[in-house]
Amino acid sequence: MDPEAFLEMANQVTKLRMYPYFEVAHAIISCLYIREDMAAGCLPFSRKHPFACWVSCMVSIFAGNILSSFLLAEPILMAFKNTNQLLLATAVWYLMFYSPFDIIYKICKLLPIKIVFASMKEVIRCKKVNDGVLHAAKLYPNGYLIMIIIGTIKGNGSAFLKLIERTLRGVWTPNAIEFLTPTFATKASIAASIVFIMDKKTDWITAPPSLVYFGIVIFFVYFKLSSMLLGIHDPFIPFENLFCAIFFGGIWDALGRLVSGAKGNSDSNAKNELSRNGKSETTKKKDQ
Amino acid sequence: MDPEAFLEMANQVTKLRMYPYFEVAHAIISCLYIREDMAAGCLPFSRKHPFACWVSCMVSIFAGNILSSFLLAEPILMAFKNTNQLLLATAVWYLMFYSPFDIIYKICKLLPIKIVFASMKEVIRCKKVNDGVLHAAKLYPNGYLIMIIIGTIKGNGSAFLKLIERTLRGVWTPNAIEFLTPTFATKASIAASIVFIMDKKTDWITAPPSLVYFGIVIFFVYFKLSSMLLGIHDPFIPFENLFCAIFFGGIWDALGRLVSGAKGNSDSNAKNELSRNGKSETTKKKDQ
Amino acid sequence: MDPEAFLEMANQVTKLRMYPYFEVAHAIISCLYIREDMAAGCLPFSRKHPFACWVSCMVSIFAGNILSSFLLAEPILMAFKNTNQLLLATAVWYLMFYSPFDIIYKICKLLPIKIVFASMKEVIRCKKVNDGVLHAAKLYPNGYLIMIIIGTIKGNGSAFLKLIERTLRGVWTPNAIEFLTPTFATKASIAASIVFIMDKKTDWITAPPSLVYFGIVIFFVYFKLSSMLLGIHDPFIPFENLFCAIFFGGIWDALGRLVSGAKGNSDSNAKNELSRNGKSETTKKKDQ
Repeated sequence: MDPEAFLEMANQVTKLRMYPYFEVAHAIISCLYIREDMAAGCLPFSRKHPFACWVSCMVSIFAGNILSSFLLAEPILMAFKNTNQLLLATAVWYLMFYSPFDIIYKICKLLPIKIVFASMKEVIRCKKVNDGVLHAAKLYPNGYLIMIIIGTIKGNGSAFLKLIERTLRGVWTPNAIEFLTPTFATKASIAASIVFIMDKKTDWITAPPSLVYFGIVIFFVYFKLSSMLLGIHDPFIPFENLFCAIFFGGIWDALGRLVSGAKGNSDSNAKNELSRNGKSETTKKKDQ
Repeated sequence: MDPEAFLEMANQVTKLRMYPYFEVAHAIISCLYIREDMAAGCLPFSRKHPFACWVSCMVSIFAGNILSSFLLAEPILMAFKNTNQLLLATAVWYLMFYSPFDIIYKICKLLPIKIVFASMKEVIRCKKVNDGVLHAAKLYPNGYLIMIIIGTIKGNGSAFLKLIERTLRGVWTPNAIEFLTPTFATKASIAASIVFIMDKKTDWITAPPSLVYFGIVIFFVYFKLSSMLLGIHDPFIPFENLFCAIFFGGIWDALGRLVSGAKGNSDSNAKNELSRNGKSETTKKKDQ
Repeated sequence: MDPEAFLEMANQVTKLRMYPYFEVAHAIISCLYIREDMAAGCLPFSRKHPFACWVSCMVSIFAGNILSSFLLAEPILMAFKNTNQLLLATAVWYLMFYSPFDIIYKICKLLPIKIVFASMKEVIRCKKVNDGVLHAAKLYPNGYLIMIIIGTIKGNGSAFLKLIERTLRGVWTPNAIEFLTPTFATKASIAASIVFIMDKKTDWITAPPSLVYFGIVIFFVYFKLSSMLLGIHDPFIPFENLFCAIFFGGIWDALGRLVSGAKGNSDSNAKNELSRNGKSETTKKKDQ
């Protein structure tokens, strides 16, 4: 492929307008996710509690803006300032839940159509991560952690608000904390935020910014597709396991067990037991 | 009645000062509500945990300000800036929980006295809805949803903070979400916010603003009294049911059942079952 | 002791720099507390969920800043603006959880070393209460309650965020509300806030400010040491019980029981039962 044409294409992608098509895709994927989260209770719930259903969907669709506004002390309601976006999201919500014979939902669930929307959502995710990092960098030029947090939250806000979004539907699942078992989307958003920061703040990346942006879009879309089509859910896991083994106790724990094993079972039995549990759970994670 | 005298009266109502009498009524009704929420455990709790009891009451009394400050990124603690209001609320709390022989509580629970306080609370509710809409309109001149949200929250904030207010007393009820089953006060506040917005932003309402305000006060007080005296709890329900039947799936679901019934029970049994559940629950709601 | 040398010493204490030694002590005590809170599940959890473990520790270490920013509508993430503080806290977290053979944790738990760190933490607590009161006084010169709240939260923020910090680890304990059973650290922070406000806003305290500050440091450290060495956990309790008996129903309830006892058991049986429960629980509190 001609490098100049490639760069031209990257520039085009950078300037893509998100409203309305990509935002529609984002809203559709969010609503699909909520419908799957509610499982069989979805239709009865949407008939009985349309108001809670709407609030819950709006919170999920605008989660990134809501959460980042909250963390940066900007008005949370500003997410709803743009009437057009709001009407668009409401229309999508209405069609997804109340279309005659549930036809819109059934169409959106068809694999080829779902793939198109999911890919478009990854494009808008990349845009949001980039916007988030830029916004945070403007406020705190040296707050690297803040940039990563805002980038990640803009990219995958609905995962972090899942607890609250479910509470709004009267479902309380205190274990659904994103920090406990971060999803691939969260990890990819963190990685993308770091790349964007490196691109903006250092000279380590020599490629033009639009190429970096395009690369991350491809990275997002590629792994989304491989997750949907091939079932590869998290390519970060091998690196994580290695990192955990080296830095987060894996090796030292193994050494500790060895030493305490040599000393006999006399005084260190309880501690041993504990480490073994820890190990077995780490192993389980590797097998996932 | 002389129209001019009526308009004069409406003007008087618009200019009513809320401090101190109406705020006392608001605080009394809030404390009464909390005492009823705690039921039999109320007195032992107030003796064992006076601090949590006070915090919980203050959160309930100032709920509208707290929640709207939170959503608009204004300091939450600003609700407690006015020392006079705070002392008033604390005095009411003290008298409601710790008066000798519980006499103040017993007096406030007498129906004629409770009716007076409840009516005064509806007057202050109308004032708060109006202030909320004006405040939001100043910040976001085109954010109609924001105006409705702030008006509603100012009008019936304690209902939205019920979950947190209960948590402060160590009681966790994740089902008590106002969005799931909005109370009449919430619906009336939404309706009043919409009327105020129409009055301020459009030319659809030709009556003078003070008359609109007075009309809403009468609407609030009238339905509060009919709820307390006649047991009519929610005059919105028939309209809601009609609206739900038309727009939120009622008719289409019925049609869907009809069609799938004609097709026989072969392939659509499971789905049918689901819709029937949804229907039966909708019916139950209508019977309430 | 020479009064002038004493004043000189107080001045020195007032000007103590918190970074890095005192902040390290604060981070160590926070991490120790979290490890004790997790009990036996701590090491396996830190191996399985290092990310949640880190987030939880950061929230606990920066709790005062996070909560006071939230209440004053300042950006919550500003707590993480200072990269040096953040790296320091992360280093302490890492060493406390992942040191080879858990040696750092074991050293920090030795009583003499723990006493040193705990004392240093009390020094930084006093500094934070003072800073909190000053900060609030600058924003709301007449908001005395706001000054007390901010001073208390800066002094003992992790206690108020315990619920959220635990939720981040997937543990949900809705009863762990600081308001229900305030710890000594909270009460001492409230008292210190009041003393600082009296010192700044009134003429009731004639001692020089640095002496007041030094006095509060000594008060904090003294009661921390007596709690760790002598087991005196809360010297406020006798005063609280007296105050509760006089103002929060103790005497009137006793009188009420007496009167209703004289009237016989006929009509007041249920109420009587209730008051007895209240009393018995109050008595239990006194025995603690």
